[in-house]
Amino acid sequence: MFILVNLKAYPCDPIEVAAAARDVAAASGVRIAVSPQAADIARVADTGVETWAQHVGPNGVGSHTGSTLAEPVADAGAAGTLINHSERRLRLADIDGAVRAAERAGLATCVCANNPAQIGAAAALGPDSVAVEPPELIGGDVSVATADPGIVEDAVAAAADVDESVEVYCGAGISSGADVETAGELGASGILLASGVAKADDPRAALEALVEPL
Amino acid sequence: MFILVNLKAYPCDPIEVAAAARDVAAASGVRIAVSPQAADIARVADTGVETWAQHVGPNGVGSHTGSTLAEPVADAGAAGTLINHSERRLRLADIDGAVRAAERAGLATCVCANNPAQIGAAAALGPDSVAVEPPELIGGDVSVATADPGIVEDAVAAAADVDESVEVYCGAGISSGADVETAGELGASGILLASGVAKADDPRAALEALVEPL
Amino acid sequence: MFILVNLKAYPCDPIEVAAAARDVAAASGVRIAVSPQAADIARVADTGVETWAQHVGPNGVGSHTGSTLAEPVADAGAAGTLINHSERRLRLADIDGAVRAAERAGLATCVCANNPAQIGAAAALGPDSVAVEPPELIGGDVSVATADPGIVEDAVAAAADVDESVEVYCGAGISSGADVETAGELGASGILLASGVAKADDPRAALEALVEPL
Amino acid sequence: MFILVNLKAYPCDPIEVAAAARDVAAASGVRIAVSPQAADIARVADTGVETWAQHVGPNGVGSHTGSTLAEPVADAGAAGTLINHSERRLRLADIDGAVRAAERAGLATCVCANNPAQIGAAAALGPDSVAVEPPELIGGDVSVATADPGIVEDAVAAAADVDESVEVYCGAGISSGADVETAGELGASGILLASGVAKADDPRAALEALVEPL
Repeated sequence: MFILVNLKAYPCDPIEVAAAARDVAAASGVRIAVSPQAADIARVADTGVETWAQHVGPNGVGSHTGSTLAEPVADAGAAGTLINHSERRLRLADIDGAVRAAERAGLATCVCANNPAQIGAAAALGPDSVAVEPPELIGGDVSVATADPGIVEDAVAAAADVDESVEVYCGAGISSGADVETAGELGASGILLASGVAKADDPRAALEALVEPL
Repeated sequence: MFILVNLKAYPCDPIEVAAAARDVAAASGVRIAVSPQAADIARVADTGVETWAQHVGPNGVGSHTGSTLAEPVADAGAAGTLINHSERRLRLADIDGAVRAAERAGLATCVCANNPAQIGAAAALGPDSVAVEPPELIGGDVSVATADPGIVEDAVAAAADVDESVEVYCGAGISSGADVETAGELGASGILLASGVAKADDPRAALEALVEPL
Repeated sequence: MFILVNLKAYPCDPIEVAAAARDVAAASGVRIAVSPQAADIARVADTGVETWAQHVGPNGVGSHTGSTLAEPVADAGAAGTLINHSERRLRLADIDGAVRAAERAGLATCVCANNPAQIGAAAALGPDSVAVEPPELIGGDVSVATADPGIVEDAVAAAADVDESVEVYCGAGISSGADVETAGELGASGILLASGVAKADDPRAALEALVEPL
Repeated sequence: MFILVNLKAYPCDPIEVAAAARDVAAASGVRIAVSPQAADIARVADTGVETWAQHVGPNGVGSHTGSTLAEPVADAGAAGTLINHSERRLRLADIDGAVRAAERAGLATCVCANNPAQIGAAAALGPDSVAVEPPELIGGDVSVATADPGIVEDAVAAAADVDESVEVYCGAGISSGADVETAGELGASGILLASGVAKADDPRAALEALVEPL
């Protein structure tokens, strides 16, 4: 099970969360990554934690100002990138372009989408993984297991119908170790979470509680 | 074979093209539709030609200003709509939303995309049809048959892999009756074209030449 | 005082509202316009009411699919257009382009913005009018007179600082005749409203109540 | 005269350009800044050169994924930021928001726009500076002095009409020391340039030639 902690634009200390994630990953053997702001990638990666970008653009090198080029993100130490997060929706052609740009730079890719039909579409673009983010669960306290377990199972089936090699992550509704277990039982091979760790008083303790059942 | 004439924002007389399309369709038995500006849908539909919108938004009724709601488009007489045309790219979630909104309004849907991977993604959203628009052929004089026949075959295969019921149209590189024939041989069941008819000195003659081999 | 009724994407009967607006305008001598979906402009304009588009794009004629070209909107009978409504925000360069496109088509222009600084910016682009839409008042039941009268006065001052010929409308927080009067006293020469008329059980009565104090 | 070198998404070595800019600035006394990709800000700033972001978003801290928050950009060492570059156009409300966000983070702001009307609009939002980028000069070899000197003078006048404290930079058409001199004579207090330095075989020599007449 892969755990990705999205720091969004939270006013947290990215280094504190990164160090905690690195240590909990080492102690538990669970793969944990942290996704900071682009300007923080280098110093987060310097902690030794697996680091992901929150977004890369579809463009390659060239006359593009204010975009997030995949190559400098990889050079700064990122190992992967989210694409099309619900807070950074992209045009279909740009998701395709961003997956290609990330692949060229050697970044793992996870394309987010919010229902099984879109998960099938995302899988058709050939990313390494997709993450299903049911809109009704984003940012809430309701767990996916109690709210709508079917959507994860349907997303797993939709992705497999299109491309069996694409992993499916659960992108919302996870806040406890029990939720992580449930996501795994529903077919997810990873989870995305944000405020549960990034805004926790004690991010280390929050991560330890998440991985405890694994 | 279905022929869709996109009038774009050309300074043509939409009624002249509509009347020509209606008459050539009746004389030849070939299904021909015309896609005008939203403000022109009602008077184009009044000619009796099959009429398509160039775009509808993902939203349903509600507090949305300046969007193109599917219902008024259908009420004005449209029978279908393009979605995600290369000149009106949408976010993945909005393509999904627009397909759903068009279905609720009873409009046929054609989602455009520019390569086989995106065609697979578009097909996963369950539209009635998809149209492949190879960027290198858009707006040019090169025919798809001479330039890149493989892309149409690959698009047909990509759509069929995901959903066999989705038809595939050829969205660029068509300007003659021979091109239409070739598109059909490559597996396309329809074509999109624009300036070849809309900017022709004699739109009726242009349409007659297109359907001649059919 | 100018009253513009924005029908948004509401499931109302645009003809019923248009006829009411036409009749109340004629009876009261107050200028009233109705702004429907693009596909409804022609039949709304056919009632004889002053008709506005909800949006026009920055482009002129050419290869633009799914945009709202100013010319067909004007040809369908519109006399003016909103630009940059809070539900259809545009890039600065596109607001400029849309004002120019609307002018070329003979449409009156009203650029919306949500605070005095943006109103100054909008006025610098030379539209006929600007509308201030304080975000905290949009869609609510709070009247601008009780909530934040200063923002209308500041918007009037900001526009006058840049270009004294640009009129200022009040774009939110209006639901009664008393609100209309207050807006006028604060320096507004027009108002935009939507649900208060478009979703009223009796649009005619709602309009009569609005113009009663004028 | 301020010289800002935009590295865009060019495949150059940002540290090489940064070190050259730092040294030429020190030797000549001319203020020179370098604007790299967000992921490169920290290491560019570490060279000691004045560093600018290419873009910051309008949002403050919170649930925003894949945006470029002003605070981490400032924390990484940036002293200023471009906003609304022609390759990263923003909605009017977002330009306003980005100027406010940059101010809160202590970043100097330069809002780009492409004609005098838009420059007036940009100045009304209260940034520290604006940059006029005539579209016909962007990325070309034609100098602003020979092509269209009037547009710089008109931009300077448009900004001054709205707010005399806003500086005006010349954002295109500069490739030689003579162009820099001309821009200054037309009223610009700074210049933006990109490929002339970033893609030069010898960025240091290119910068020395630019500052030579100053």
